[in-house]
Amino acid sequence: MGTFRFHVAVSLDGYVAGPHQGVENPLGVGGMELHRWLFDLEAWRASEGQEGGEVNASTTVIEEAQANIGAVVMGRNMFGGGPGPWTEDPPWKGWWGENPPYHVPVFVLTHHPREPLKMDGGTTFFFVTDGIRSALDEARRAAGDKDVLLGGGASVIQQYLAGSIDRFELRVVPIVLGDGERLLENVGDLELEQVRAIEAPGVTHITYRVVRG
Amino acid sequence: MGTFRFHVAVSLDGYVAGPHQGVENPLGVGGMELHRWLFDLEAWRASEGQEGGEVNASTTVIEEAQANIGAVVMGRNMFGGGPGPWTEDPPWKGWWGENPPYHVPVFVLTHHPREPLKMDGGTTFFFVTDGIRSALDEARRAAGDKDVLLGGGASVIQQYLAGSIDRFELRVVPIVLGDGERLLENVGDLELEQVRAIEAPGVTHITYRVVRG
Repeated sequence: MGTFRFHVAVSLDGYVAGPHQGVENPLGVGGMELHRWLFDLEAWRASEGQEGGEVNASTTVIEEAQANIGAVVMGRNMFGGGPGPWTEDPPWKGWWGENPPYHVPVFVLTHHPREPLKMDGGTTFFFVTDGIRSALDEARRAAGDKDVLLGGGASVIQQYLAGSIDRFELRVVPIVLGDGERLLENVGDLELEQVRAIEAPGVTHITYRVVRG
Repeated sequence: MGTFRFHVAVSLDGYVAGPHQGVENPLGVGGMELHRWLFDLEAWRASEGQEGGEVNASTTVIEEAQANIGAVVMGRNMFGGGPGPWTEDPPWKGWWGENPPYHVPVFVLTHHPREPLKMDGGTTFFFVTDGIRSALDEARRAAGDKDVLLGGGASVIQQYLAGSIDRFELRVVPIVLGDGERLLENVGDLELEQVRAIEAPGVTHITYRVVRG
């Protein structure tokens, strides 16, 4: 069985999004700055169809984080489409267009049933209504020997952290957001081990393993 | 003129002390774990009169942090002796015994005047009652070309961060405290630049420079 893991950019004061998040501003005020180090990378620019950009220590970290993923779990907010049942017309298909960057089965946590949504490029969204345990089980089955990536957001990460996450990587970004959505809240007692730390321009990538008693 | 800087160990959720701080438990519940990486070091053990211990990447970081310091500024809580005027008998002389580990002038912020307190080994405590600006000015004069170290605690760091701190080093420790004293609260808009990150056993040392407009 692979590992169940996540990676997320976090401000120095512990936020994964700024205040006043909304459809117009999904990362909140100032939250886009969490990803400034990413936007300069050649790997990112290429994925957006742009040329140029840097290759630095973050490049390898990102490639590793994206490797060996067999399935993804994410919360309803991360998939989008607003709260409540799936009533949009045309139906909401996520933020990522016809060919989402996952290319594996993605299990979306929701309270509202919906038929699976097959996209281009190997991504199929499955909508799981019977809880986080069940979503992880399904994702593990789909992933086989590969890893399951937890996409987010913060509240879903918090729910999974105490019981199921094997390891995670923080991308510690030199900004202070002052308010917004905190990552490590309500996670109870958590025994962690630092696995490695990688310095890169504008960010430090630190990997932690969750130690189970 | 030297730099004005601080270094502090911080949990993954941003605390520099756990909950329920007090005389019996100055670092709060769980707060001692912030320094676990330190207690294993030969450099620490030697300063406590003990033999053995590790030499690792943290050793160099600590030596650098302790070098070139010409004066120290600290808050009343860090010096100790309780709130209010200096009425203890015998007079409170800080937590560090007759030969404190500073060996330079130390400027203690307080609301209550007190004569300077000369200790063994070159440390003299000066008690500054006219505010943080004045304490820093006095410390800079005493330090000459050397650096001024801000000892803490968190509230004093917050007061100095926006206007005066040149650089600081976070010792990011793989623990989650859940509650306690946060470091980066009420610091306003702060433009930072990551200077370097050093991986060491059980801790990552990240240095930031404060960018002034």
